[in-house]
Amino acid sequence: MERRVFLQVPGPTNIPDRILRVLSRPNVNSRDTAFVALLRSVVADLKYVFQTDTGDVLIFPATGSGGLEAVAVNLLNEGDKVLALCNGTFSERFATIAETFGAEVERLTSEAGSVVGPDEVARRLAEDAGHQIKMISMAHCETSTTAVSDVQRISELRKRLGHPALLMVDAISSLACIDLPADAWDIDVVVTGSQKGLMLPPGLAFVCVRGRAWDAVAQVRTPRWYWNFRTMCDRLREGGYPYTPAQTLIFGLRESLDILKEEGLFNTFRRHRILMEGVRAGVRAMGLTLLTPDEHASASVSAVLVPAQLTFADLEARMRLQYGVVIGGGLGPLAGKIFRIGHMGMLTETEVMAVLVALESALLDLGFPVEHGSGVIAARKAMTPQVSAV
Amino acid sequence: MERRVFLQVPGPTNIPDRILRVLSRPNVNSRDTAFVALLRSVVADLKYVFQTDTGDVLIFPATGSGGLEAVAVNLLNEGDKVLALCNGTFSERFATIAETFGAEVERLTSEAGSVVGPDEVARRLAEDAGHQIKMISMAHCETSTTAVSDVQRISELRKRLGHPALLMVDAISSLACIDLPADAWDIDVVVTGSQKGLMLPPGLAFVCVRGRAWDAVAQVRTPRWYWNFRTMCDRLREGGYPYTPAQTLIFGLRESLDILKEEGLFNTFRRHRILMEGVRAGVRAMGLTLLTPDEHASASVSAVLVPAQLTFADLEARMRLQYGVVIGGGLGPLAGKIFRIGHMGMLTETEVMAVLVALESALLDLGFPVEHGSGVIAARKAMTPQVSAV
Amino acid sequence: MERRVFLQVPGPTNIPDRILRVLSRPNVNSRDTAFVALLRSVVADLKYVFQTDTGDVLIFPATGSGGLEAVAVNLLNEGDKVLALCNGTFSERFATIAETFGAEVERLTSEAGSVVGPDEVARRLAEDAGHQIKMISMAHCETSTTAVSDVQRISELRKRLGHPALLMVDAISSLACIDLPADAWDIDVVVTGSQKGLMLPPGLAFVCVRGRAWDAVAQVRTPRWYWNFRTMCDRLREGGYPYTPAQTLIFGLRESLDILKEEGLFNTFRRHRILMEGVRAGVRAMGLTLLTPDEHASASVSAVLVPAQLTFADLEARMRLQYGVVIGGGLGPLAGKIFRIGHMGMLTETEVMAVLVALESALLDLGFPVEHGSGVIAARKAMTPQVSAV
Amino acid sequence: MERRVFLQVPGPTNIPDRILRVLSRPNVNSRDTAFVALLRSVVADLKYVFQTDTGDVLIFPATGSGGLEAVAVNLLNEGDKVLALCNGTFSERFATIAETFGAEVERLTSEAGSVVGPDEVARRLAEDAGHQIKMISMAHCETSTTAVSDVQRISELRKRLGHPALLMVDAISSLACIDLPADAWDIDVVVTGSQKGLMLPPGLAFVCVRGRAWDAVAQVRTPRWYWNFRTMCDRLREGGYPYTPAQTLIFGLRESLDILKEEGLFNTFRRHRILMEGVRAGVRAMGLTLLTPDEHASASVSAVLVPAQLTFADLEARMRLQYGVVIGGGLGPLAGKIFRIGHMGMLTETEVMAVLVALESALLDLGFPVEHGSGVIAARKAMTPQVSAV
Repeated sequence: MERRVFLQVPGPTNIPDRILRVLSRPNVNSRDTAFVALLRSVVADLKYVFQTDTGDVLIFPATGSGGLEAVAVNLLNEGDKVLALCNGTFSERFATIAETFGAEVERLTSEAGSVVGPDEVARRLAEDAGHQIKMISMAHCETSTTAVSDVQRISELRKRLGHPALLMVDAISSLACIDLPADAWDIDVVVTGSQKGLMLPPGLAFVCVRGRAWDAVAQVRTPRWYWNFRTMCDRLREGGYPYTPAQTLIFGLRESLDILKEEGLFNTFRRHRILMEGVRAGVRAMGLTLLTPDEHASASVSAVLVPAQLTFADLEARMRLQYGVVIGGGLGPLAGKIFRIGHMGMLTETEVMAVLVALESALLDLGFPVEHGSGVIAARKAMTPQVSAV
Repeated sequence: MERRVFLQVPGPTNIPDRILRVLSRPNVNSRDTAFVALLRSVVADLKYVFQTDTGDVLIFPATGSGGLEAVAVNLLNEGDKVLALCNGTFSERFATIAETFGAEVERLTSEAGSVVGPDEVARRLAEDAGHQIKMISMAHCETSTTAVSDVQRISELRKRLGHPALLMVDAISSLACIDLPADAWDIDVVVTGSQKGLMLPPGLAFVCVRGRAWDAVAQVRTPRWYWNFRTMCDRLREGGYPYTPAQTLIFGLRESLDILKEEGLFNTFRRHRILMEGVRAGVRAMGLTLLTPDEHASASVSAVLVPAQLTFADLEARMRLQYGVVIGGGLGPLAGKIFRIGHMGMLTETEVMAVLVALESALLDLGFPVEHGSGVIAARKAMTPQVSAV
Repeated sequence: MERRVFLQVPGPTNIPDRILRVLSRPNVNSRDTAFVALLRSVVADLKYVFQTDTGDVLIFPATGSGGLEAVAVNLLNEGDKVLALCNGTFSERFATIAETFGAEVERLTSEAGSVVGPDEVARRLAEDAGHQIKMISMAHCETSTTAVSDVQRISELRKRLGHPALLMVDAISSLACIDLPADAWDIDVVVTGSQKGLMLPPGLAFVCVRGRAWDAVAQVRTPRWYWNFRTMCDRLREGGYPYTPAQTLIFGLRESLDILKEEGLFNTFRRHRILMEGVRAGVRAMGLTLLTPDEHASASVSAVLVPAQLTFADLEARMRLQYGVVIGGGLGPLAGKIFRIGHMGMLTETEVMAVLVALESALLDLGFPVEHGSGVIAARKAMTPQVSAV
Repeated sequence: MERRVFLQVPGPTNIPDRILRVLSRPNVNSRDTAFVALLRSVVADLKYVFQTDTGDVLIFPATGSGGLEAVAVNLLNEGDKVLALCNGTFSERFATIAETFGAEVERLTSEAGSVVGPDEVARRLAEDAGHQIKMISMAHCETSTTAVSDVQRISELRKRLGHPALLMVDAISSLACIDLPADAWDIDVVVTGSQKGLMLPPGLAFVCVRGRAWDAVAQVRTPRWYWNFRTMCDRLREGGYPYTPAQTLIFGLRESLDILKEEGLFNTFRRHRILMEGVRAGVRAMGLTLLTPDEHASASVSAVLVPAQLTFADLEARMRLQYGVVIGGGLGPLAGKIFRIGHMGMLTETEVMAVLVALESALLDLGFPVEHGSGVIAARKAMTPQVSAV
């Protein structure tokens, strides 16, 4: 049966129709003046999304993980010390990449679903009197557990302590979903990918690089060519590109940025927060347990414990085959233990409701006792007072 | 805000992605052998959808209403008598068209939401000892009220009475949604359009013409050129077309027919019936009243009375602007009194649930008292025992 | 082998990429305010293309032939006299349609490739002292022979003679290619289709109806419903439509009209004239004979005699299979005797050159003696002095 | 003016319509079984294109240059010696990348338009009695000059000399255009990108890695994560991917591979060779000089000296603005001195002819004396005897 699928994995997300259509534009000459103008325009508007005036936004033909590798090789020398806030697969991924390239990584960890506390980070920075720590790395939203860290607080504590460490934030599953102002919070490097809040297919990595990070780039000797921040930045400023740009996705990006500007970034954040509250209230009302406490809850994705009576495989299959809703599973140690519902990008309250109803139905089908209607009743209550003004 | 819309008007319906993509195929020479083969293949597979071996299916570049006009001018001479079963705007439309072209139309009417009973038809046929009635016209599903008539029974009674009247069925909102076997029920002419059960954009009218109707075509002298059944049929059989075919929609039709064959027509009917039961149970549970009693309920569209406390305009706007669900209103005398929920074409249980949740929310927003969750609870119950085997 | 085809039949024509992409837009509610605004905007801009302020442009979901039928049933009563200028298949088509609906048609004919002279028309009008002739029908560009008639002169002579006959012009293969100002030339009715100069798929018919034609519409009693000019016009003015509009093509039409406005209608005409001169000079230089003399030459399509040594079937197949160029053949009595090269819609000088080179190659392949390069040399000379200012 | 452009830069190339359409497919779950099957199928069919049974083909979300970097970091340790055959910008690019990552690069150079001779390579290998040279790097077709090197001969000489150096071939502008059998010629590593012979948008890099290269991969300690061959290969074999795949391009790749299989790889090669002969004969006949002698001519792209009387900027602008043909310029030291005509991917004889006619016209417009028609006459002669059997 041909049907409209509810793609609720934590990325890739739904692509709006108007973006889908431009993806079928024919190839153009990369040096064409119209394309050069397009490239300039998206670079400019990306600054709006990263909330930076002072930074540069670089676009790599790569996935978000490529953006993380790019950060490592542009900002870290062999032996440089990284304080890695590891609370899941993706924050750990950057630590692994940094180690791969010779950095000395010290991990501060937390249990799954939680975050490394700002105080713990501050304590560690305070101990580092010699300023050995060159970079603090963290995921804004740790996609694997859905825990959101307090980037602002960590940046403030760093400032208060006068510690010069660079702050590197993986915003792959949060950018354009959750507020993360690069300038206002003085974040040195922010990384994201195309297939989440930007509502595009995968294939572009974006890195926002700000002042002190540029100083580090100038001093780092780790070999890099494809990922070279300086070259990419200089060529983009000239209206060029160091190699062939992935133009199809750039065409789509133009539409994506238009869509974000039309809604207004803060309306987008607010919408995501409301949808999150609906999801969280809904799954709780069904007797399910969220992995992440409210204080770390993500507006872009939610993780729910698989009830003891069920298996993830059964639940996922039932949701997909019977109800057309595609959910994500747990990664690594969380495999089989949680399921994840993405609610980022183009998404409405009605779709969230549909997902909750499908979940309720699937749970009932599999014999898990749920009070009929409990999920949507709670979700509506959670979303109603706020939603009308979006 | 850019969003995925739930288009639940009674047509046009949602177009599956794979159909959308072929609509952007470049123009071809209409006499190209590949196109001719494509045209032959869709004509053949349309017979599967109309459930006919003995009939011919004609394709006109026009909307469904064009198909109705085509029937009038090919099958009726000036002064020919039509017994028109009029139970709403669209069954009345054919009567009007027939009168426009000089037919003498006798209307059997019913109140809105009901149908003209087979017994009443039989009685009228029995009275017509001289066989003056040349054609019985009716809508299978009267889209404006959502009432489904018993085509099979009327055809049987006609046979039992030995009355030679042709049976003309408007299946615009029922074909490929509700069982209507042209051969098995001995229906002489069936008309439909592209934008309902066939999941295409509007722009094609289909007419299935069977044996005795062809005899009438041969004898009718009403002028026709564009709508000429004989010419269209002969040219299609030769692999040609009497004028330029609307090739874009023919490309889409090929995909549509593939989709229908993949699901299997009877599975498609069964799915629509289940969705209907969900909708009807859901709206009733919310304290709303259906226009059409169960015996005439349509698997493709449902009409609901607008509660006295509310206006259609407010409800429609709330559904659309707040919840992204587009519903239809009442036509003619029913304007403002009912709203209609289309559930034809590509649609799933989850989408029906989403629509019901949105309706519940909109009603609550507008101050209409609904027990929270009542709609989805009832709808799930109505859909559950059956849905799993689709 | 997958390849880019040169579609040079006299319609359908090449669809620009930006139009192709909007054809894959999902269905919308036909009563949606955004769609209503779109519909209003295309109706307004169609007036630019028809060059009318005083007329109304109607859009029918049908092919161009449907537009011709619409004219017949809205403007002619049974027995009304039509003076039909018949110089080929398509001008004859209207005569046939008019006769089908009971008009008394008097044909003025010309030989293939020529036109009915304005003086002959004037003489006939002058004889018609009783003003029995209600309508003069003609094709601006007779697509089957490519001869262009002098519409302006015929209109002037009619005026000078004070004859009240309506002037009905089939502009199916000329609108948006060859100048045809409805107001300035006082043409009462102009008909066209979507798949020629408008660069769309087939499926829309357009009729421009001006003042005196509206008077006739009001008095004509010929039955019509689908084609009813009055209803269509009134509904369009209200932002509605008498039945379901073919929205996919309306989406495309919006792009088409933008494209035409961007180029400017007179630049579009000028470009077509230059392309025509290239084609004509090129084929002549290859030793081929044009069917139509220069005074009747069409800027949208050219007809060439098939050399005696060759067959059309061989030439067409060679052009298509070997060179990827699709040409048209002769119709009716001209079948096998001519081939036609469409040069309407989105087309450039370079594509015309490509077609001429392919033709030269195909002729040589088939043993027809052509001086190598003669076609492109002559075509360039014909196009060069003019082309640079377009 | 909206028009169909002839995109004749040396990449990106024209995308066939059927590929364009699949690029607008919605996102899917990367772990979806249908997507996994698709990914497996393209990996399998890429082997056909690389002509390898024994090798693995890896797909990176990156441009071709990313593929070159991937080779450097997977196959070279710091200090490893590379014999780089440098005859232009792109063969030099790999040398630069290898140096960036610490390799000791010895360059054998040739003048622009020529290649480093196999004998010179053999001499250098013979001198390397200690087998210090770990890798020979070369571009099959040096895109910047269009010179094609004799990969087969170099591989044979290497074998004859018993030298263990790995052979790394940049086939970015040659794969699927010019024969390059990885197994038969015993090439250890072949790199290409998506936007040339594969007729896709830019954004995918492909690397074919064969037996001895895998041995090197296992021993190399150069840090790599995103580019890790072992991880990519292992994950692809499991039906997974080390990060998010660029699914849009994978959808397109499936169509691309189908198209190549339908034509048959050797027919594709043959077609490109014929088109090359047409281009070369045509430009010569116009009195222009090719940069590359026949023995090194490329079937995918041709470089022509800009005549002394003209500037590249003028010629390029005239070709593009007046004739809709987009050509490439010279890079680095060749900037302003040559122009390049891409003839790779989906391209026909007729399009080549169109480009030559446009070139002839542009030259004439700019005052460069060309005998009218000379280009197409010569091109046809060069292409005719062969083309008919393709």
